[in-house]
Parts: sequence; structure tokens; C-alpha cells
Amino acid sequence: MPEVKVINFGAGPAKLPEEVLLEVQKELLNYAGTGMSVMEMSHRSADYLNINNNCQNSLRNLLNIPDNYHILFMQGGGTGLFAAVAMNLISRTGSADYIVTGTWSKKAAKEAAKYGKVNLVLPDTKIGTIQDQSEWKLSPDASYVYYCDNETVDGVEFPYVPETGDVPLVTDMSSNFLTRPFDVSKFGVVFAGAQKNFGPSGIVVAIVRDDLLGSALPFTPSVFDFAQIAKENSVLNTPPTFQVYTIWRVFEWIRRNGGVEGMQERSRLKSGSVYEAIRNSKGFYESPIDENVRSRVNIPFKLRGGADADAEFLKGASKLGMTQLKGHRSVGGIRVSLYNAITLEETKLFVDYMNRFTSSYKK
Amino acid sequence: MPEVKVINFGAGPAKLPEEVLLEVQKELLNYAGTGMSVMEMSHRSADYLNINNNCQNSLRNLLNIPDNYHILFMQGGGTGLFAAVAMNLISRTGSADYIVTGTWSKKAAKEAAKYGKVNLVLPDTKIGTIQDQSEWKLSPDASYVYYCDNETVDGVEFPYVPETGDVPLVTDMSSNFLTRPFDVSKFGVVFAGAQKNFGPSGIVVAIVRDDLLGSALPFTPSVFDFAQIAKENSVLNTPPTFQVYTIWRVFEWIRRNGGVEGMQERSRLKSGSVYEAIRNSKGFYESPIDENVRSRVNIPFKLRGGADADAEFLKGASKLGMTQLKGHRSVGGIRVSLYNAITLEETKLFVDYMNRFTSSYKK
Repeated sequence: MPEVKVINFGAGPAKLPEEVLLEVQKELLNYAGTGMSVMEMSHRSADYLNINNNCQNSLRNLLNIPDNYHILFMQGGGTGLFAAVAMNLISRTGSADYIVTGTWSKKAAKEAAKYGKVNLVLPDTKIGTIQDQSEWKLSPDASYVYYCDNETVDGVEFPYVPETGDVPLVTDMSSNFLTRPFDVSKFGVVFAGAQKNFGPSGIVVAIVRDDLLGSALPFTPSVFDFAQIAKENSVLNTPPTFQVYTIWRVFEWIRRNGGVEGMQERSRLKSGSVYEAIRNSKGFYESPIDENVRSRVNIPFKLRGGADADAEFLKGASKLGMTQLKGHRSVGGIRVSLYNAITLEETKLFVDYMNRFTSSYKK
Repeated sequence: MPEVKVINFGAGPAKLPEEVLLEVQKELLNYAGTGMSVMEMSHRSADYLNINNNCQNSLRNLLNIPDNYHILFMQGGGTGLFAAVAMNLISRTGSADYIVTGTWSKKAAKEAAKYGKVNLVLPDTKIGTIQDQSEWKLSPDASYVYYCDNETVDGVEFPYVPETGDVPLVTDMSSNFLTRPFDVSKFGVVFAGAQKNFGPSGIVVAIVRDDLLGSALPFTPSVFDFAQIAKENSVLNTPPTFQVYTIWRVFEWIRRNGGVEGMQERSRLKSGSVYEAIRNSKGFYESPIDENVRSRVNIPFKLRGGADADAEFLKGASKLGMTQLKGHRSVGGIRVSLYNAITLEETKLFVDYMNRFTSSYKK
């Protein structure tokens, strides 16, 4: 172990609950008395199919997912889903609406343009704001409306679910999935990579409404065809079995800790304390994000002192074991990520450091 | 632990070297003194980029991969690669040659047909044989020639590398990768899922020749575009970091155990002893596969006694802890898989059981 206990504030892959890692470690060579590792089990075995079903049930309970939604385990990350969403949904009208509020929704729109016409709903996006819905240019003939519920790089989070009438709503929740309850029935598709709030990288969960299956473009790879995956209960081909097992353990950890309502309350307290430190710093720390759309999970900020101050802040944090705090290369500054596994205590240590640093810097 | 030590002869996901599982277990919460799990590390961190590079170097050394080949870490399994291969390579002429020798090459040909014209080189395939090369109908204008080096379900393995002149050769080595040396320079693309011989499911390794990059069809998803993945050194988006780490550990285990030459020698001894037991059984056990194309890693066989005898054989094996021996649902009978992690001792126990069973059955 390093001399100081590490506190990992990274944006992802990110901290996992220690309790879950200890469980995974304990049964790494012998899952549930089978005498073998989860990694060694056939994906067609009764033991694995139980894991597959238990994992889905656990998530269905956490989010009250209605029966007319399928839970799909997929590979290829969020970037894979950017293509898959368009390949599966855009054929109805040939076009889709994209609400671009940051780095990831912009990438999603670019990938989707390979498969149809992409309308940018907010042509004059200024990162750090979300224009009022009354100004959006939604197209009546869009196959779907797409947005990113939380922009990991930019720190912008939707405080509401957009209203799109009968047009199916699709959202990338990769960085805030399971950090608050939401009404699944408002969506056509919700997807999220695991590596922020609920597991290791290498798996994406997609929640897909029944009636949206079966319209994939003819050249859709089988492993990206929602209908095929749904039909085979996410065992179309060999799934990432270790990931399915691990995210199930995290789902159960969330359940034991108050469910998504518990995560939401902790998220409120954690992010609230960081934003309070920014506000109380009288401009020493600056958030470039509008107050009403500030992310609860990814908080980018800059120091008034500029890059030198950023560097000294990071150096001091590092001495305290606080790691992966550097802002995204495209943004700079500091970014603290407060995903589900980050504790209130860890957040308090960070906030205390923020407060101390304002007075200790260049005195 | 179960009362009897389990011996896992499954076809995949399959047994992993115990030594590697113990290493992974030991550092599950603290990789190399970083104070965090591999699963918690940013894929852009120096620690992970070292794993990424070390893993590639380790494989490059094992197989003497020439400098003009890229090693790509991909997701989506073999089935994902069935699409990716065609999407990346078929555009040159619009058609490709497929040598169908079993279940998996048949599926690959079907998936490829979404992207261009698929010529079946062996129109009258009889499973269990590989027609002589002189009878193949190769097309001079094929973009590539595709084959499956070892058919996991059917137990057919190529004893040679097909000769295709200037047409790039593509092979799926998912079930026999790293079980013998081969000359990489004879291939355009070699790919293999990890879950048979070198790791957990959720990762595919593709070895791609330089000059084949950059011709992907315009609608290829970014995560399936060989050129984009190569350019970003397999960190185009978040890779399955835990898998990359684990396969690296298996590569190092192979190196310590004599490299692919060592694996080949063990494979020869293991499969040789099973085939010997079949031959010596005087028809009690039957292999449906031509002698010259019998797989060294997946050995399907049937009992003269029919389904009842199969069932009793499996029951007796199960009592000895020998699991996952049931033949593929499409084939029936017994299938014993002898991947790299299966030891000579475990194979001997199985062969001894085969021999005992011939005399004990229905006496």
C-alpha cells in the first residue's frame, strides 16, 4: 500500500465500493461454492444464467423498470452505443434530434450522422448552459430525441427530463446512472457504461422500450442489434460475464445503502459541500457552469490563480492521497468526481482541503 | 469448496491458470502498490497505459508479431468481429471468400453477407472434414479469404495455413490462439476471443496488418474501425481495462511455461492421450472427425451406447468433479476441451476415467 490511503476522485473508470471489491476478491477462485471462478463458467451454465437474471432483477427493482422495457448487457462502451442507438432507431424517419450540451453528446451526434440526418436542437450551444426548452428546435419528424443527462467532461447535468411528446427520448446516463431515481417510462432508451457508478469498464447497460425493437438498419452488426440481444436475454454470444457478476454486486450494494434514493441524498450532500466551498471562496475557485445545471457527480472548477495555482492544488491533494483530480485535457483546471462509491467522509476531506488551500496558497 | 476438486473441461469461458487467478486475487484492491484496483484506474493514467503497452509487448514476443502488424483490443466477442472484419476489409472488391468448416465459420459468413458478396469456397461442406485445397473455389477478386482455424463446436482444426496468394487471409483463432506457434506474416487479420485460452470473456485481440487499415465502410461504428483503434493504441474509448490486465498476466504465464512452443507440446500430449483412448476403445467411443483435421483443443465424441451411455458417462465424470463436458446442444454427445490452462495431470484423470468407463459400463 502507498503510505497515504488513496482517495480516488477520478472521472472513470472510477472508485468502486470497497465492500464489493472485497466480495469479488473473496470468491474470485470459487464462486458460490462452485469450485470455479465466475470467469471460468460457461455463459450457458445454470450458474451464470442465474447471475444474468439476478442482475437484471436487481436493477429492475432499483429503478422500478416497467415490464415493457428490456434490460440489455452490451459491449463497446458509450461510443459503441452512440452507433447502436442510431442503427436501431433512426430508420423510422431517417432523422434524429440531438441536444448537444457538451463533449459526449457532440460525439454521439457525430457518430449518428453516419446513419441518418442529425438535427442539432441547440445550434448555438454554449457549454456550461442549457438553453430553455422554449428555444429548442425540435423536429416533428425526428425518429428520436437524444441527450446526455450528465456531461462528464463539462460538468453539465440536466435538472429535468426533456419533454418530447410522442417522439422517443434517448439518453446517455453513463456518468449519473443510479445516482438518483428517474421515471423510466418517459424514455425510449436509457444507456450507461458501468465504469463510473456501478462497475468495471467493459459493459454497458441499455434499457430499451419494447416497441423500439426490430427496426435496426440492415447492416447493423448482430452484437449491436437491440432486438437480437433482447431475444437472447443478453446471451446472444459470450457476454462479459465477470462484469455482469460485478455490477450485480454493486446493484445489491446500492440496495443495501438506501437504493437510488439513498444515492441521491448522498450525492446532494457531497456535491452541495463542494459547491458551497466554491461559493464561499469568494472567487478563489470558479465554476464555469450555470448554477441550475451544475452536475452533482462531475465538478470542474478553476483557480483564480491560473495554471500555476491548479498545479499547486493538485500537488497538495496528491500528498493527501487524493488522486485523478486533474481536469479533462480539453478543459484544464480541476475536476472532482463524486460517484456513488465516494463517501461523505472522503468528500469532507476534499472540501476541508479546498478550504485550507484558499488561505495557505501564496501567503 | 465442493467436496471434490472441480476440473473444468468447458469449451468457454473456460479454466484459467490458478497461478494467474491467485495473482489477480491478491492485487484486486491494490494494483502494484497504487492503492487502487485495476478496475478503478483511469484508462488515460500512466499506470494503465503501461499495462496496455506491456500486454501488447508480451503478446508480440510470444508470437513474434512483425512490426507492420497492429495489436488491437476490442469488444463484442467473436460475433462482433464477424461484422468488423467485413466492415473493414470487404470494400476493396465488394466480395470475400469464406471457407465454411463448421458452426462458427458459417455464422461469420452469414454476418459478412450484410456487407458484401460472400462466396462459399466449399459449397458442399461436410462437417468433420476439410476438402483438399485443390478442390476449393477461390475467387481471384475476393477482398479476403476467411476461415476458422479451429471450430469449437465441431472439433475441426486446420493442420496447415491455407494458401491464398496475394489475397489477404483472415482467421478466427478464438479457440486455439496461443496453443501453437504460427507465422503471423501469412495473415492479413488474426483474431481471438480471450475466454478459451488466455483470459476472461469481454475482450477480443485482433492482429491486423498495416496496409489493411483505412478502408472501412462509411457506416462502420467507430469502435469497430480497425484504423481508429490502431491510431489510438486501443484506447479510442474506455477499454475493458480489467481484461487487458488479466490477459497480460496470462501471456506472462505462457511465457514462463515455455511460450507457445510449450503450449503446443502440452497440447500434443493432452489431445494425443484422449484420441488414443478413443482409438483403443474399439468403437466404444467414436470421433466423427477425419483423423487429419481433429482438433487438439475441442474433442467431441459419442458413445456407442447412445444417449443413455452419454448420460451415464457425464454422471460418473461429475462425481469425479469433471464438469462442463456435455457436447454442444447442436451436436450432442461429449466434448472435452483441453485449453492451455488444463494440465497434463487433469487430462490423465479424464483419460483414466474414459478407460475405466469402457469396462464398467453395463457390465
